[in-house]
Amino acid sequence: MESNKRDLLAIEDLSLQEIEAIFSLANQMEESLSPYSSLCSNRIMASLFFEPSTRTRLSFETAMHRLGGRVISVSEADTSSLAKGESLADTARVIGSYVDIIVIRHPWEGSARAFAEYTPVPVINGGDGGHQHPTQTLCDLYTIKKEKGHIKGLRVALCGDLRNGRTVHSLVYGLAMFGAEIICAPGADLDMPPHLLTKLKTEYGYEPVQLNRSDIKFLKEGLDLLYMSPSKPVQLSFPEESFVGFSAKGKELVRNIDILYVTRVQKERFVPGTEKPSSYPVIDKKTLAEAKFKETIVMHPLPRVDELAPEVDTDPRGIYFKQAARGVPIRMAITSFLLGAKKLPVEEGPDQRKNKEIYKSRHGLACANKNCASFKERQFLAPKFEILSQEPLKLRCVYCEYEIEARCVGNLRSKRCYPPENITKIKKEHLVIFESIKQAEELSFKSVNAPVSLP
Amino acid sequence: MESNKRDLLAIEDLSLQEIEAIFSLANQMEESLSPYSSLCSNRIMASLFFEPSTRTRLSFETAMHRLGGRVISVSEADTSSLAKGESLADTARVIGSYVDIIVIRHPWEGSARAFAEYTPVPVINGGDGGHQHPTQTLCDLYTIKKEKGHIKGLRVALCGDLRNGRTVHSLVYGLAMFGAEIICAPGADLDMPPHLLTKLKTEYGYEPVQLNRSDIKFLKEGLDLLYMSPSKPVQLSFPEESFVGFSAKGKELVRNIDILYVTRVQKERFVPGTEKPSSYPVIDKKTLAEAKFKETIVMHPLPRVDELAPEVDTDPRGIYFKQAARGVPIRMAITSFLLGAKKLPVEEGPDQRKNKEIYKSRHGLACANKNCASFKERQFLAPKFEILSQEPLKLRCVYCEYEIEARCVGNLRSKRCYPPENITKIKKEHLVIFESIKQAEELSFKSVNAPVSLP
Amino acid sequence: MESNKRDLLAIEDLSLQEIEAIFSLANQMEESLSPYSSLCSNRIMASLFFEPSTRTRLSFETAMHRLGGRVISVSEADTSSLAKGESLADTARVIGSYVDIIVIRHPWEGSARAFAEYTPVPVINGGDGGHQHPTQTLCDLYTIKKEKGHIKGLRVALCGDLRNGRTVHSLVYGLAMFGAEIICAPGADLDMPPHLLTKLKTEYGYEPVQLNRSDIKFLKEGLDLLYMSPSKPVQLSFPEESFVGFSAKGKELVRNIDILYVTRVQKERFVPGTEKPSSYPVIDKKTLAEAKFKETIVMHPLPRVDELAPEVDTDPRGIYFKQAARGVPIRMAITSFLLGAKKLPVEEGPDQRKNKEIYKSRHGLACANKNCASFKERQFLAPKFEILSQEPLKLRCVYCEYEIEARCVGNLRSKRCYPPENITKIKKEHLVIFESIKQAEELSFKSVNAPVSLP
Repeated sequence: MESNKRDLLAIEDLSLQEIEAIFSLANQMEESLSPYSSLCSNRIMASLFFEPSTRTRLSFETAMHRLGGRVISVSEADTSSLAKGESLADTARVIGSYVDIIVIRHPWEGSARAFAEYTPVPVINGGDGGHQHPTQTLCDLYTIKKEKGHIKGLRVALCGDLRNGRTVHSLVYGLAMFGAEIICAPGADLDMPPHLLTKLKTEYGYEPVQLNRSDIKFLKEGLDLLYMSPSKPVQLSFPEESFVGFSAKGKELVRNIDILYVTRVQKERFVPGTEKPSSYPVIDKKTLAEAKFKETIVMHPLPRVDELAPEVDTDPRGIYFKQAARGVPIRMAITSFLLGAKKLPVEEGPDQRKNKEIYKSRHGLACANKNCASFKERQFLAPKFEILSQEPLKLRCVYCEYEIEARCVGNLRSKRCYPPENITKIKKEHLVIFESIKQAEELSFKSVNAPVSLP
Repeated sequence: MESNKRDLLAIEDLSLQEIEAIFSLANQMEESLSPYSSLCSNRIMASLFFEPSTRTRLSFETAMHRLGGRVISVSEADTSSLAKGESLADTARVIGSYVDIIVIRHPWEGSARAFAEYTPVPVINGGDGGHQHPTQTLCDLYTIKKEKGHIKGLRVALCGDLRNGRTVHSLVYGLAMFGAEIICAPGADLDMPPHLLTKLKTEYGYEPVQLNRSDIKFLKEGLDLLYMSPSKPVQLSFPEESFVGFSAKGKELVRNIDILYVTRVQKERFVPGTEKPSSYPVIDKKTLAEAKFKETIVMHPLPRVDELAPEVDTDPRGIYFKQAARGVPIRMAITSFLLGAKKLPVEEGPDQRKNKEIYKSRHGLACANKNCASFKERQFLAPKFEILSQEPLKLRCVYCEYEIEARCVGNLRSKRCYPPENITKIKKEHLVIFESIKQAEELSFKSVNAPVSLP
Repeated sequence: MESNKRDLLAIEDLSLQEIEAIFSLANQMEESLSPYSSLCSNRIMASLFFEPSTRTRLSFETAMHRLGGRVISVSEADTSSLAKGESLADTARVIGSYVDIIVIRHPWEGSARAFAEYTPVPVINGGDGGHQHPTQTLCDLYTIKKEKGHIKGLRVALCGDLRNGRTVHSLVYGLAMFGAEIICAPGADLDMPPHLLTKLKTEYGYEPVQLNRSDIKFLKEGLDLLYMSPSKPVQLSFPEESFVGFSAKGKELVRNIDILYVTRVQKERFVPGTEKPSSYPVIDKKTLAEAKFKETIVMHPLPRVDELAPEVDTDPRGIYFKQAARGVPIRMAITSFLLGAKKLPVEEGPDQRKNKEIYKSRHGLACANKNCASFKERQFLAPKFEILSQEPLKLRCVYCEYEIEARCVGNLRSKRCYPPENITKIKKEHLVIFESIKQAEELSFKSVNAPVSLP
């Protein structure tokens, strides 16, 4: 669907200026609801939650009601109902012809973007599998700004299930946009996925540095820490050959943790049969008693299980219920913006990846993430990638943002295939990219090692 | 409940004039929503979906919101919750005392009519088992009229699960009311139920003619076609003795298919353990490439599974998403009409079957359809039949419209029973009709072959 | 959460004056809706039903819509979804930051009170396990008043599952507040729980008297009756030594049953594996044919199963559908009162148990009811008891109202424990109460039989 509608599918769909303007609008809405009580009257929101949720769904619905709008709602307690359902593409076209704006939560990565491509109205991603949860990130950043006055340069420790937590996956990009420093403190085997680290490095210049756990006592034993900052080599220079010399820096590093962002184990995204993690960071009064946490604010996207002790609830540093409450004004602001009911006083939208090269084809390469919407809905969606680099030929799925390296390119007309470095020599309309030579040959392409010649 | 409220339980609950007036109102609503945005303010709709649904429920709720009304909603993902529930009759009385209008979807045939009998407010049938789905039919007919300018005389091919599909079961009567020609192209063993064919014949003069599959290549091989028109013998004379001579006519017949109405397999209405059909019509680009489909519009009530290829989506003949979008203005129109918020400029309502004889009794005959509401709710509902003919004694269940032939009549006072032709000789208040002499005798009636004498 | 917000968690949260004022407001609302159609505009109700419900949920939502308010809704068909959920305390804080008023139904006794303690907005108990259902009681009492003109002195027979039915558990206190007489006619082994009888006796002066079933033919055979009145010894003096002399009185007693309040078997609250009751009172036309029921009105909170025959529906004494319909104006009245949108012209609120002594401690005694919210949420809630008497030391759980007798008291400072009669000698801030000496010793308290000496 070609249109100039705006969606919020990932945090980077907004520019920094727009995010700041949304904070300013949310702040006004938080102070007084009444000026906005009919801002969206006669508008209808479809609140489509294909995964269990109460908090996010209810805060979106509350937001729409506070704006005078109406809501229709799908809340499936049992995701198995998806099995008998129709394609996202069909649902998107139908519901999009009923309402004015759609919020969708769905268990596949990239599902919100797939939905948005098939519907003429603005779509807000309320959580798409393990991919992103951008309105939670707006709420998180807004809270940090309200509590600390600014975001740039703050040191934020992300604790818990960094592998599966979509709130964290959105948040790191949000923090990078603002220039905060990031410390990853995952549970055992729950590290941040590599493609996030790569993107943080290539697009935001964040260099990850492994901290040695035996040197730094931070949170529980047995957990590895990762430190990332927008310009690491300047601010902090770890001797690369060993972490022995790091202990002093490490101590300095953890002297001022500004934010502890705690998350629960995302059991529902574990491969069935997987055990619970052998070690997991837990925040309680004892943790917070250390000097370095004196000024720390403790955040949590909720719900919590037992990684954050109830005793912290009454500690002034525990601000997670304030954080949750701010979900309503933030969602009011973003909803009224996307509906066009409120213009933002900004000059620049997001970069829209204008100079990024997109490759889209039903032939050859598919996303390697089997939970990606482009794989699940391959009947409707052609695989679509952003080309990150040509040598090696690296691509990023537009839907789920997983990265893949391709080892072969082909010419659809001549049915010949070549080593990947020949990519520029093939006309864009004839180009097909393959995972491997094997895949190309299985699809009846003839492997050629000689230079490409147009047929 | 005696009242002059109007319900929409089957398509024939509206007169042709009323349907046309509803189309006209829906058309105005489709063009501009704002004049209607408070037409039903302070009115509440109960949207009771006891079977999974998203499309129909959401379009009704959207319609009510667009009219400024409010909605309360029940959406049961799991129909097993019906098990612990109360009777329809009780639910109807309670919910009917809360709200102003009720939409109900329920898995039993005739459930909407049963519900309507027990509630003082207008009831709209949102789908009652395999029986009818009249608002879908309004939407379908409205779409045909918008796309083709008229309905009378059009040739409509109904494809797929004609045995279980309630949208089709409503639609054939709607098409017959308007005088369209109907071609049935069912999947294997998924033919239109006999009682529908009988009613089309006796009440609308539609004669079914079996077309020989080896003569006509229409859709997939191995499927039998049935052709029905309002005045068949005049328009098309098939030699009755054989279908050999039919081939020429057959070719003519399929030269101008105006509408392909495609439906999915209604797996959820199959007897458990039943296999999928051995053959099923599938519409794709290749099907539509034949000359006879050049002007055809392709419709589908959605959701689709794989009987309609995604490649048709971008074909201008595939208008099913427009059809779905029209569900909202159609449901706005019918809701505002039934609520009395909008009068229709018509002189004639439906015939209300004034001259049809109704037989109702707790004794003797019950509906043979074990999924009929009158059977499931027999604690509350007495079996109720329309008497279709006296010799043979044929009856049609008022709830599910299944037909049954009765072979014995009895006199409740004398406890004697007779052959069915004696029906007119028994006073109406003493009449009891039996399935068979055996049933009568089991109920202690004494079989008599002599003429009836009043006791 | 300290605030002067008002909740409705149990019927005694309202004073008699307030209940009468609510009846008066409901009566006006029942007569005409339009004056109230924007009384609560811009207010949002969260309707949180963690147990299956249609009737109560829909009538609350209807009530809020009739007041011009908005509703967000959770309706879990499957209570197993509670398992993966967060604590009540967390949910309460989050949702309470979104909306203006909360209605909650939840399977644990005392859950609504626990919820209310953690949320800043008014909470209405829509049913908390087997504990109470106060808005149903308001609806019941309102119906009695409308039908009979008054409540005081009426003789009300409660039939069916008096052990598990929360509607009955609220109603008895409501009837006691108004001074009605109560007859309990339970199904086999479904007697009123002892702690309710104790409270009726100690707080309202209701003496239970066992009636001899062989003397009185009331309802079905094999059921034991219990009769309670506000001042039993005056109105009716049963010879205590035997029930032989009771037969005459018994006949008199059942001459004027004013109300039959019928309830269904609460199968969902049975211990799994428990059989259905061997005997259960059933009300049908035959029951009602007895002279003593001539002026009786038959009530039922619905849904019914088979304890109340459909044939009673058309009997003018069967007023249960009118009773259900009154749920809407009653819930409109209570909602607008709790939201502060409507003041009640009363001088006195409920007594708030001002002079009742509350004991709260995480140490020692816990509620013996394993389905009590204070047990299920012990991570957040400290056990909290009202001290009913000191010798013996009896306590009542503030959440579920179960009673418990404690056999040991301790001093937290000295770590010594004593027989319960020493309770007054221990400073309140050092007091800990134990179930038994054994429990105290397990918690390392040293048992002392000598008089308490402050350490």
